[in-house]
Amino acid sequence: MNPASKPAASRPHIVVVGCGFGGLEATRSLRKADVDVTVIERTNHHLFQPLLYQVATAGLAAPSIAAPVRVLFRRYANVTTLLGEVTGIEPATREVVLADGARIGYDHLIVAAGATHSYFGHDEWAPHAPGLKTLADAFDIRRRMLLSFEAAERESDPQRRRALLTFAVIGAGPTGVEMAGTMAEIARHTLSGEFRRIDPASAEVLLIEGGSRVLQAMPESLSAKALVQLSKLGVQVRLNSRVTSIDATGLDTSQADGSVSRIDSHCIVWAAGVAASPLGKLLAQATGATLDRAGRIHVEPDLSLAGHPEISVVGDLAAAQSHVPGKPPTPVPGVSPAAKQMGRTAAANILARLSQQSAKAFRYADYGNLATIGRNSAVVDLATPFGPFRMSGRLAWQFWLFAHVYFLIGFRNRLVVLMDWASAYWSFQRYARVVPDTEAPLASTAGRPVPNAPNDADVILQKE
Amino acid sequence: MNPASKPAASRPHIVVVGCGFGGLEATRSLRKADVDVTVIERTNHHLFQPLLYQVATAGLAAPSIAAPVRVLFRRYANVTTLLGEVTGIEPATREVVLADGARIGYDHLIVAAGATHSYFGHDEWAPHAPGLKTLADAFDIRRRMLLSFEAAERESDPQRRRALLTFAVIGAGPTGVEMAGTMAEIARHTLSGEFRRIDPASAEVLLIEGGSRVLQAMPESLSAKALVQLSKLGVQVRLNSRVTSIDATGLDTSQADGSVSRIDSHCIVWAAGVAASPLGKLLAQATGATLDRAGRIHVEPDLSLAGHPEISVVGDLAAAQSHVPGKPPTPVPGVSPAAKQMGRTAAANILARLSQQSAKAFRYADYGNLATIGRNSAVVDLATPFGPFRMSGRLAWQFWLFAHVYFLIGFRNRLVVLMDWASAYWSFQRYARVVPDTEAPLASTAGRPVPNAPNDADVILQKE
Repeated sequence: MNPASKPAASRPHIVVVGCGFGGLEATRSLRKADVDVTVIERTNHHLFQPLLYQVATAGLAAPSIAAPVRVLFRRYANVTTLLGEVTGIEPATREVVLADGARIGYDHLIVAAGATHSYFGHDEWAPHAPGLKTLADAFDIRRRMLLSFEAAERESDPQRRRALLTFAVIGAGPTGVEMAGTMAEIARHTLSGEFRRIDPASAEVLLIEGGSRVLQAMPESLSAKALVQLSKLGVQVRLNSRVTSIDATGLDTSQADGSVSRIDSHCIVWAAGVAASPLGKLLAQATGATLDRAGRIHVEPDLSLAGHPEISVVGDLAAAQSHVPGKPPTPVPGVSPAAKQMGRTAAANILARLSQQSAKAFRYADYGNLATIGRNSAVVDLATPFGPFRMSGRLAWQFWLFAHVYFLIGFRNRLVVLMDWASAYWSFQRYARVVPDTEAPLASTAGRPVPNAPNDADVILQKE
Repeated sequence: MNPASKPAASRPHIVVVGCGFGGLEATRSLRKADVDVTVIERTNHHLFQPLLYQVATAGLAAPSIAAPVRVLFRRYANVTTLLGEVTGIEPATREVVLADGARIGYDHLIVAAGATHSYFGHDEWAPHAPGLKTLADAFDIRRRMLLSFEAAERESDPQRRRALLTFAVIGAGPTGVEMAGTMAEIARHTLSGEFRRIDPASAEVLLIEGGSRVLQAMPESLSAKALVQLSKLGVQVRLNSRVTSIDATGLDTSQADGSVSRIDSHCIVWAAGVAASPLGKLLAQATGATLDRAGRIHVEPDLSLAGHPEISVVGDLAAAQSHVPGKPPTPVPGVSPAAKQMGRTAAANILARLSQQSAKAFRYADYGNLATIGRNSAVVDLATPFGPFRMSGRLAWQFWLFAHVYFLIGFRNRLVVLMDWASAYWSFQRYARVVPDTEAPLASTAGRPVPNAPNDADVILQKE
């Protein structure tokens, strides 16, 4: 079992694609095995995505929720980390192809490439409504949000100023609810007293949802409670509203009754659609596997692909099912505990196969569901052996907070995040309100002269 | 003196351009005066530039050294903050022109626009050798440094790998010395054990200086000590070496003896030349003031411009002199304490003029000079009433450290920076090793196939 005692080439080589929750757990499970592992990750960090909205809303610095992959695997002598983007998988030759053309052979492959945004066929919306999957996305949203207030302070036209102070979040799942709740808190509290010409609290935060309730993965009673809490925070929730177009100056929606409405906004966040990584499609073409509507790849009960026991798919890329003996299989939700569990199962099944044992079917242990809404505000639906345990409000928020800090990687990060949250709680301030690239922030000019008076609002600005 | 008690337009309007150390101190000095102040800043934050190299070298997160301007001025009721870039100053009409064409009138103007890099007429070097003035610069350098190690891990050609593991810092002033020392520490300690194919400690860090010693603003004895400390940290210092060209794959130098040499490197940092903001030239053209060789504008003893007592220039943009009665004037160095002092003097002189008193000549209080080199390594040259007090090594480093933490803005930042430094000191780790935009990090492809063995070094990569 000592990885150094054998020549490398004689040991099975396992390639893990992606280092999100699924890939990270799979790699950890393999660290003491008599195998060589190569992890290929296209960023240099593992991202704690549940707190990414905090980076987008300037509550946390990026390094607090991102751990360098190399540091995580430093002590795993059998693990090699490569920074690179996988653009092809060739099961016939058992090779992975990287963007630069490099080919890496494998004996076993774990694909944990995750998910990305889906604009439901409207990719032209992407430049106007960033989603929230990567740190770059979070910085983009932070920049748009903060610069909208800045532009509003310089805008004299009431209609344009109103548009600059309108923030629209599309999709009322957990990310949309978090984003909208936090944006409302920023407008009402964080920025209070900092502007001279606008009142940030007059900003409107709209949460636009095509379905009939927020947090549809939650029980209806908690959805109803979340709706009340969102309203208290100042979020305007528009249910049964479908987005029909998005452009540089706003979006159009159509309601269930057939009416349409226009929302002028310069800061739109897309939290509506998730699609599996494009690697799913590639893999399906190469192996004959099938995809579900979200582009996720159908896997066998043991998380491998039909006809390809050497390829496993875990996390958000897998359309997996949970198998409890004596019960019908149930679909596995796209949440981080599921990805972690799949990573562990896939690794264990590879090791089982290597020692001529049989692979086991995946069984998802569901501990429940949390969603935060804002200050003192969250809903929790725990699965306990005695049935569901539900709570909302301040206690749920405290539970959410400590659960998230607990699962954060690294002592330093836990400490700093707790400190930042404590400070934000008491002061209403958010310390990461820094936009590195505002040097040329605001395109286009108007050029109207402004009278010589500091407090009037005649400084002209047009956004893009 | 209650700013709210008078109509705004009846009070003198002071415009401050820039919110570095000079602009910040000027604004603070005006916060209780019966004037209206408008601060125009092109980023949304005040940057604590002395620690910017720590962001570039992944030791600190950006928000730890950047304070949002609006937060700093929130309680100053007479201060309005505008995010914008000044592109023109028109003394005839007393107006400042912004990039978008907006015009802002002033009664008094303080220009504190600072300095930028100067490539000595070789702006074509800029894309290959970023300087270190803004957060965007720091992220650029962080990215280049970390991705060079990543690329080296994937490079099979020994010569290209050597180039990827060669880091060149041009200019051995305080910034160059800090950068080189920290880079050497990262290569030798931080990354130790994280790579499987390369030994990061084999990286070469070169510090290239045209002059005959490092830290030329320091006494010669401290320059000599700094040189020894740099060598101990593993930095190769090349004195009397002038850079004659920089391109995407390295740089050429010529030595005093006429010999030339080529250094292949993919991570080059420019710390050699500083030039005043281009606003200096604009201002000189508009007012008839003259510039020095670095583009700094010559100011009157009271920091105003000749013939324009309503315009003051402070900080790195000013070629100012210190006036001590009975002694000849001495030039003021481009350091942050000088900028702060100039900001205070300019503000006081404006208030004096407004109350029909005479302006005072600027007098620079020099408390000495610090430069850090690396772990336990710094030089300190303090000016005391009893003469200079000099030290180097561990004690100097501790002095440097606490002095910098003391001057950082914000309790939270002080605490986190101290914590990060303590953790870095004991663990050798640097927590901000996060590059947000590595998704498509490495241009160009080679496409050679790689044998199926995880630990060989045949994965191909060419940088740009």
